[in-house]
Amino acid sequence: MRTVTFLPSYRKIDAPRGTTILDAAQKAGINMNVVCGGIGKCGKCVVIVQSGKAEFDRAKYGRFFTEEELKKGTCLACVTTIQGDLQVVIPESTLIQEQKILIDGMDAPIEFHPSVKKYYVELQQPTLADPSPDLSRLLWGIQKKGGPVAEKMYAPLEVMREIPALLRHSDWKVTGTVALVPGGYRLIDLQENDTSQRLYGAAVDLGSTTVVAYLWDLISGKAAGVASNYNRQISCGEDILARVNYAQKNGIEKLQTLAVESINSALTAAANGAGIDREDIYEVVVAGNTVMTHMLLGIDPAYIIKEPYVPVVQRALSVAAARIGITCNDNCGLFAFPAVSDFIGGDIIADILACRMSEREEISLLVDIGTNFEVVLGNSEWMFSCAGAAGPALEGGEVLYGMRANPGAIEKISIDPATLEPTYATINRIKPKGITGSGLIDIIAELLSVGVIDRTGRINTGITNPRIRSGSHYPEYVVAWAGETDIGKDIVITENDIKNLIMSKASIHAACVTLMKEAGVTRLDIDTIYFAGAFGNYINKKNATIAGLIPEIDLERIKNIGNGAVAGANMALINRRQRKLLDGIAGKIAYIELNAEPSFMDEYTSSAFLPHTDLSLFPRVQALLDSLREKKEAT
Amino acid sequence: MRTVTFLPSYRKIDAPRGTTILDAAQKAGINMNVVCGGIGKCGKCVVIVQSGKAEFDRAKYGRFFTEEELKKGTCLACVTTIQGDLQVVIPESTLIQEQKILIDGMDAPIEFHPSVKKYYVELQQPTLADPSPDLSRLLWGIQKKGGPVAEKMYAPLEVMREIPALLRHSDWKVTGTVALVPGGYRLIDLQENDTSQRLYGAAVDLGSTTVVAYLWDLISGKAAGVASNYNRQISCGEDILARVNYAQKNGIEKLQTLAVESINSALTAAANGAGIDREDIYEVVVAGNTVMTHMLLGIDPAYIIKEPYVPVVQRALSVAAARIGITCNDNCGLFAFPAVSDFIGGDIIADILACRMSEREEISLLVDIGTNFEVVLGNSEWMFSCAGAAGPALEGGEVLYGMRANPGAIEKISIDPATLEPTYATINRIKPKGITGSGLIDIIAELLSVGVIDRTGRINTGITNPRIRSGSHYPEYVVAWAGETDIGKDIVITENDIKNLIMSKASIHAACVTLMKEAGVTRLDIDTIYFAGAFGNYINKKNATIAGLIPEIDLERIKNIGNGAVAGANMALINRRQRKLLDGIAGKIAYIELNAEPSFMDEYTSSAFLPHTDLSLFPRVQALLDSLREKKEAT
Repeated sequence: MRTVTFLPSYRKIDAPRGTTILDAAQKAGINMNVVCGGIGKCGKCVVIVQSGKAEFDRAKYGRFFTEEELKKGTCLACVTTIQGDLQVVIPESTLIQEQKILIDGMDAPIEFHPSVKKYYVELQQPTLADPSPDLSRLLWGIQKKGGPVAEKMYAPLEVMREIPALLRHSDWKVTGTVALVPGGYRLIDLQENDTSQRLYGAAVDLGSTTVVAYLWDLISGKAAGVASNYNRQISCGEDILARVNYAQKNGIEKLQTLAVESINSALTAAANGAGIDREDIYEVVVAGNTVMTHMLLGIDPAYIIKEPYVPVVQRALSVAAARIGITCNDNCGLFAFPAVSDFIGGDIIADILACRMSEREEISLLVDIGTNFEVVLGNSEWMFSCAGAAGPALEGGEVLYGMRANPGAIEKISIDPATLEPTYATINRIKPKGITGSGLIDIIAELLSVGVIDRTGRINTGITNPRIRSGSHYPEYVVAWAGETDIGKDIVITENDIKNLIMSKASIHAACVTLMKEAGVTRLDIDTIYFAGAFGNYINKKNATIAGLIPEIDLERIKNIGNGAVAGANMALINRRQRKLLDGIAGKIAYIELNAEPSFMDEYTSSAFLPHTDLSLFPRVQALLDSLREKKEAT
Repeated sequence: MRTVTFLPSYRKIDAPRGTTILDAAQKAGINMNVVCGGIGKCGKCVVIVQSGKAEFDRAKYGRFFTEEELKKGTCLACVTTIQGDLQVVIPESTLIQEQKILIDGMDAPIEFHPSVKKYYVELQQPTLADPSPDLSRLLWGIQKKGGPVAEKMYAPLEVMREIPALLRHSDWKVTGTVALVPGGYRLIDLQENDTSQRLYGAAVDLGSTTVVAYLWDLISGKAAGVASNYNRQISCGEDILARVNYAQKNGIEKLQTLAVESINSALTAAANGAGIDREDIYEVVVAGNTVMTHMLLGIDPAYIIKEPYVPVVQRALSVAAARIGITCNDNCGLFAFPAVSDFIGGDIIADILACRMSEREEISLLVDIGTNFEVVLGNSEWMFSCAGAAGPALEGGEVLYGMRANPGAIEKISIDPATLEPTYATINRIKPKGITGSGLIDIIAELLSVGVIDRTGRINTGITNPRIRSGSHYPEYVVAWAGETDIGKDIVITENDIKNLIMSKASIHAACVTLMKEAGVTRLDIDTIYFAGAFGNYINKKNATIAGLIPEIDLERIKNIGNGAVAGANMALINRRQRKLLDGIAGKIAYIELNAEPSFMDEYTSSAFLPHTDLSLFPRVQALLDSLREKKEAT
């Protein structure tokens, strides 16, 4: 055995005399460029033998280098054999460059390290002098092409059975697909000839309402397609509770099947849109909440929803996609995100991964708003989380003209302080049909800013303006006149709507403060606030602060990560190393049960004002209201 | 984090402050007695805190120790928490004692370390204060009972789906079965209540003629049953070649099914005989030759038998037994021995494991004789192997009254030098029907020793004795008169039989010498000769030497390991660590193709005498023949 030390990393490895430097480097986990497969043809695996004895055939391979380079010990790693202990310098240019990929919702690009790779190999056919078994021959070929060390790869029985015929039928030219799985490197597919340019993966956000699937080209590292559709489980119940009850009565099978069908249908749409054969999808990464993940895997979620709220499993899981009915490649793997608790599921872990709050020293606050809301506070050292029902107001329920974020929903509004005339934008820029969550937050913030409502949400009906009127049940403000709408009716916001909105925003703000108290930090300690979820995508950060939905910090430190679940799933698909972080993130997060926290109710009561009872927590809003009062007093 | 150093091994581990010493020891891979599951009740996990700060409640648990012991720092590991860096002595009596098991065919007992274990746990049911997920609760419970670290265990989907209902239905009292598989520790089964006393494993010798299955109680470490039957593939062809040809014509499926049925039938017979439910068999270890292993797994063996003789796979394989049709527990695993080449298969690796020749410095020679023979020479540093057709003579073919080792076969003979009268023993002590291999070797050695035949095998018809006669075609010696046989005919051995026997034994001896030359060793360098296979079980070591079947060494250094394939399979089942050796053994063995070795034919020619042309290689036989000649000359 000889010891080779690779510079500049000083990584050491023992290798038998006669081993090529390339083989030793691969065993040491150093990935060099080997375009030709290590046969001295491409001249890419350039290294410099700084000291020690190595054999390099100058007559045969010297043409790649100048005399001066050769004198310095420059040679090709693939055809240079180790004779004694060596020190070998690997120039930067010899290493495989890490590709970086930018994913929607992320600040910075991440490295491209998918867990599935394809290798096209042209093997020497066996002879009496080299009768090594088919499997070894194939795996060594894959190793030579830069794949994992042959001994660390294994083939499942179904692939093994195909090997002898496939190798001979294809004249020993095949493409192997290798996936990194918990047990090692698995040869999940073998195909005739060169199919190494067809390799795709899918990242799925399995929401209780919507399923979003992204397809990625795992060769080029480019997004290849996206599709979304409703979660078909809606036929078994609108919300999660109803579906779990359905499962208890009728078994989990139908809900499992519907979850799978929803994913299959999104994958089919995305694949068809991009002209991709689903057979070429070799990995699916799914982020979903705890109940959705259980249902997808066919695991009974009954005990999650009743005291003491116990999931069956929280850790990340890898299963065969075909095993649960996902129709991609037969040997496609499925990776499901881990959860923290009944209410903090894989979707929130994906949010955390996407915003990278668990990797920074600075403290971040993550707020994911849907039917339920989840809040996570923390940094690389510690994390607290909680969840609650946001109430339906922010999703358009319990608000007279509220609606989901569908086309025609008013998503942004500003109100002229002088005329009290609104300016609004609708989704898809069609005539308004109603108001969605971000529009509603805008309205209460704007109405407060222009003095139409007070800090309790009461409409000042003393103001003389056609848009302010008594309404049939409650005082109201007219957002859009019937003539300009799609529904032929005035779209208004009532005092009752505003009260409901205040209750919703109060529970979210109280949740934030409860975590801050638990951690002993104030709003001044928070470096960044992240909004996740569809709601966060459209929200006006300034208005969210004025309404007191979130603690007041500098506006430029409030960020929207959009669909963090899909962003996190994309990251885990694109870069397998991200997955290793997940169980660690989940393990670090303490879950605070808000109902068991006495201070939460107090905080809720204090937060049920615009923006809060204690204005000193919102100095910018205080200044705004002060200037409003001064203006009023001046007139 | 605190550092705990365990003595006397000096194993170190970092653990958070507050961890129990037991948990830290388990993480360090130290297995202590924890009869009560680590709750301070049984008093078995005694340790001595030699230095450092630890917390142990003397008031509560001091009763287990004397005042003097307490002063020395003696405490219970399960209820003592780590407060500072510690040095902890673990007395021998605290460690789980390694059970040793003696297996037929082995010199020394081996440690009992099955790869499957059962753990009965009584879990605390979840509460609001402890709502940890079912899976974690279960795995922690198993860890507390001395199982693997919870984080290193995983549950396949089918088991995971059963967890929530099973736990609740059994009032949180369940038995988990954990197997060590390539990917980690797998929870392969979960049962209600305490079934921890029912755990079995099977070791199978999958021979081309016979299938032998041993059942082991994997709780007590005792053999529970054994059964054997013909390999049902015989319906597709008597020998391997015929079966591979059958597979090429008709597909591998039928041969795969027949191999599995042969194993299932032997397992059923062994299980029924022992009163064991096959559902309680959780692991099957199979040793078979290269072709048989391919067929069992449904992998096409076609290319093994034609130039350049390439197997599909040689390494050890782990597959789900149910996946190939073995009917044991649904999640039973199957481990198949690795091979070295087309002719040196898992059965020979099992022989090597059983005789431990690969673990000793001394050089051993292993000879496995059946229809084919395999010879392995080497030690812990190096190994050479070869294989060939023994010719049918030793199995009773091409010998007039030859037969397999069935009841009625003469297996031992001695011949009185004065009267030339034979004394023989038959299998099952019934009237003779024919002569089996070991009897045939006895006959030629005895006939040579008493001067009836010469070194070329020619019968001296000049001797006047009723047992020596001309015969119808060849001169012959009468072994048994018609009246004493079961077949009503004189059982004889002819000169032609003897010539055929000499050809068979010559090829085996020549193979031994070819390997010895390749390795540069002489017979004097050989420490031990091992006979494996049914043939070796009955052979007379002295006569095997006189006949020149094997090189001459001291008789007490010739050993029979019997069915080495089943002995090796038993070892790998009983002690999982043995399996790690196998790929190493296989990788170390160089295979010598005898037909490509010019010296083999020369050696064969030299060996086609009794015992050999060169008598100096057989000094004891030379002395015997010298004394015979002297006696003759004296009379």
